[in-house]
Amino acid sequence: MIGVDWGTSSFRAFRLTREGAIRDQKSAPRGIMAVPDGRFADTLREEIGPWLAGGEHHVLLSGMIGSRQGWVEARYLPCPAGPAEIAAALTDVPFDWAQVKIVPGLSAVDSSGVAEVMRGEETQLIGVLGAIGSSGWACLPGTHAKWARVEDSRIVSFSTHLTGEAYAALRGHTILARMMRDGTTDPAGFDRGVARSGEPGGLLHHLFGVRSLALVGRLGEGAGSSYLSGLLIGHEVRAALASIPPGAVVHMIGAPELTTLYARAVEACGGMAERLNGEAAAKGLALIGQHTAWN
Amino acid sequence: MIGVDWGTSSFRAFRLTREGAIRDQKSAPRGIMAVPDGRFADTLREEIGPWLAGGEHHVLLSGMIGSRQGWVEARYLPCPAGPAEIAAALTDVPFDWAQVKIVPGLSAVDSSGVAEVMRGEETQLIGVLGAIGSSGWACLPGTHAKWARVEDSRIVSFSTHLTGEAYAALRGHTILARMMRDGTTDPAGFDRGVARSGEPGGLLHHLFGVRSLALVGRLGEGAGSSYLSGLLIGHEVRAALASIPPGAVVHMIGAPELTTLYARAVEACGGMAERLNGEAAAKGLALIGQHTAWN
Repeated sequence: MIGVDWGTSSFRAFRLTREGAIRDQKSAPRGIMAVPDGRFADTLREEIGPWLAGGEHHVLLSGMIGSRQGWVEARYLPCPAGPAEIAAALTDVPFDWAQVKIVPGLSAVDSSGVAEVMRGEETQLIGVLGAIGSSGWACLPGTHAKWARVEDSRIVSFSTHLTGEAYAALRGHTILARMMRDGTTDPAGFDRGVARSGEPGGLLHHLFGVRSLALVGRLGEGAGSSYLSGLLIGHEVRAALASIPPGAVVHMIGAPELTTLYARAVEACGGMAERLNGEAAAKGLALIGQHTAWN
Repeated sequence: MIGVDWGTSSFRAFRLTREGAIRDQKSAPRGIMAVPDGRFADTLREEIGPWLAGGEHHVLLSGMIGSRQGWVEARYLPCPAGPAEIAAALTDVPFDWAQVKIVPGLSAVDSSGVAEVMRGEETQLIGVLGAIGSSGWACLPGTHAKWARVEDSRIVSFSTHLTGEAYAALRGHTILARMMRDGTTDPAGFDRGVARSGEPGGLLHHLFGVRSLALVGRLGEGAGSSYLSGLLIGHEVRAALASIPPGAVVHMIGAPELTTLYARAVEACGGMAERLNGEAAAKGLALIGQHTAWN
């Protein structure tokens, strides 16, 4: 089969064996926002045409391709959900050259009953079920970072933090922009920000402190953006760890530069973190594909 | 004397009696960012020339006019500071038509030893000392909201929250922008945001909830910006109240539309708030002027 992780900004396709090994893969900057006039079918055919010609006829898509802005809107499946539940809730997409289905997003409620949604991350979580074990915790850092609880090999609940987007908005569009320098990373500044997140006063107070520390010469120009990143990630991690039993391992999924930072913050905040490598999305697509009733 | 509250975006001047009554006042959109080429002296003469011709020769300026981007940089005076300490730390400004002095900003450290600064708000706080009593708490909502502790008629400590700027950055430059409608206020939405700020999960999680609530139809389009405002103000108020004794009154200073919201949030979070009316800046300038050694 063919699995495609089709997000907002990127398109990543995997040609998979029935057992889930990657035979071939390709990626392109053809996320849904880069596809003009809803030409998703043409884009897909252009990207995976050779594989289709080579005999593949089952294609599974996950990610924002199933959103309202995507090809065909796929539902949000309520948690708990594992590979079987997800495979039973796929959305069929009309396509002349293969059978195409879209993975649903997942929905849940947080401890206060407020709605939660994910789309795309569910496939990555399914892909690391083997590494997490039948029960455990996982975190997917990013624009909208997700923390998920797995029980009996199913995703039972999760919570989202707007950390990545808040970071970009605050560093670009407030007075803090003056003390941010592009392209610099400062691990000590990151650690100071994480430590600061544990002090009293709240995030909004700590944000002003970025400015006042710089103003009195206590935060170097090159450290500003790392400090702000550590502050925000530290606040997220402390809030998330509050609902995770002490000593539980948080499995980190995603780009190494981000999971490294998050793992560092989790450990500074008294938690335990383990980074997972490999193509979580490809593994998830393969596993869901194995449970799918293809024609 | 003449007192001028000269901020980033506005210029507000008061002609004051020795007792602090306002004889005349004027305002113009000539904040320091609107003054070209450092022409502060010209601007001042244009605005208050008639009063100078009428015999005034003592002019006290406060606000961002004393910042690095202003006319002459005025120091930050460490707390504790009352009218006498502030009057003893004024910065002289060369001006041909009157004696002009600038009020210093104040500095302090928060409970963790992190630097705090204010510039302009100290004058408003001095202006409400009479209303606060010799000891008490005051809050000045705004872009950088200030919470201050007064003891023995002096400002002893304060903390700043980036709430107003964070609100603008988040509502304008994140995915939340999609669910914000200009010019609508929804008191019930504001109250829901304030209530939400007391639930577990942290601010970054609650921010994503603005999107997910809208996505599942639980937050009307017209309520989005009020809900976000309540969420942020609620987080600020809860963090600030944590260091204020239960039952203490928080005196609210500023524009009525903002102090009304803050007072509402303080009371929803279990605190007590009292709104102060009148020209706090003018009163503060008059009181500092009374302690000043004019030539």
